Parts: sequence; structure tokens; C-alpha cells
Amino acid sequence: MQKFYATIKITLRKGILDVQGKAVEHALHSLEYQMISNVRIGKFVELVIDADSREIAFTKAEEACKKLIANPIIEDFEITIKD
Amino acid sequence: MQKFYATIKITLRKGILDVQGKAVEHALHSLEYQMISNVRIGKFVELVIDADSREIAFTKAEEACKKLIANPIIEDFEITIKD
Repeated sequence: MQKFYATIKITLRKGILDVQGKAVEHALHSLEYQMISNVRIGKFVELVIDADSREIAFTKAEEACKKLIANPIIEDFEITIKD
Repeated sequence: MQKFYATIKITLRKGILDVQGKAVEHALHSLEYQMISNVRIGKFVELVIDADSREIAFTKAEEACKKLIANPIIEDFEITIKD
């Protein structure tokens, strides 16, 4: 049994309106940051998985994302596993 | 003037209690994912910056993080700039 460190980037799918991103973008523009555009806000999750192999750790992370951490209907996720 | 694509990982500083992460961890444990621990939830921000150089783009992203996107008192941020 080994500890694996997983990081997960969760982003809203293309075509899904990012209301929070739009709000941040408007706020940046009113702070004179007009050079910033296309703000999209997602989640960044870090977790530790006890598993016998990197493959098992990845599978567990993927299942956890699909079942609970991400909403696969509107979000994409990308998992990275480190030892 | 060129477009630079910035991604920003925002994480809660060590020592700051991550209530959302704890809630997700407990939920995972009740779904039989006891092998998952140390869940920390941050933000993942993507944006586009119009700038003359990568250095200027980085500086603008850093300013935006300090002023608006992150809360430097309780959060760390890591900026990556791509062309």
C-alpha cells in the first residue's frame, strides 16, 4: 500500500455559461484590467489516495470525480497522479 | 500585442482549515472511498491576457490575483502563462 498524491482540475465545459467568471471579468475591467478576457473559473482539488498501484489510484480518483467531486454533465476533469 | 493564456491554481494555505474539503472527504468515506484522505479544494482560473510580452502578461495576472482573484491572506496562487 502506497500513498499517491492526486491533483484534479475541474473546468466548466465549453458552451456552459460561466457566470462567476463573467462577474470576475467585469470586476477586473472596472479595475482597469481591460487586457484580461475569457475568464473561466473552475475547481482545483488535491487529495491523497492509499492504493497498491498508480493505476488503482487513478481509477479511484476517476470514480470519486464522477460520483461526487465533479458534475460530469457540465464539467470536465483532468486527473494527475504523483507518487 | 499578443494573446497569452494564463492558468492560475489557487489553494488554501497550509494550516487554514478547509471546511469544503472536509465535507467532501466525509462524503467520500460514506461512499466507501476510505482510501481517500487530505482533500483540499481550491480554485482553477483560466484567462486570456493581451500583452506585449510574457513578462507583462505574468505581471498583470499576478496583480489581478493579488487585487481580486485570490485572497493572499488565506490563499496561495501559482500562475502559468502559455502563448
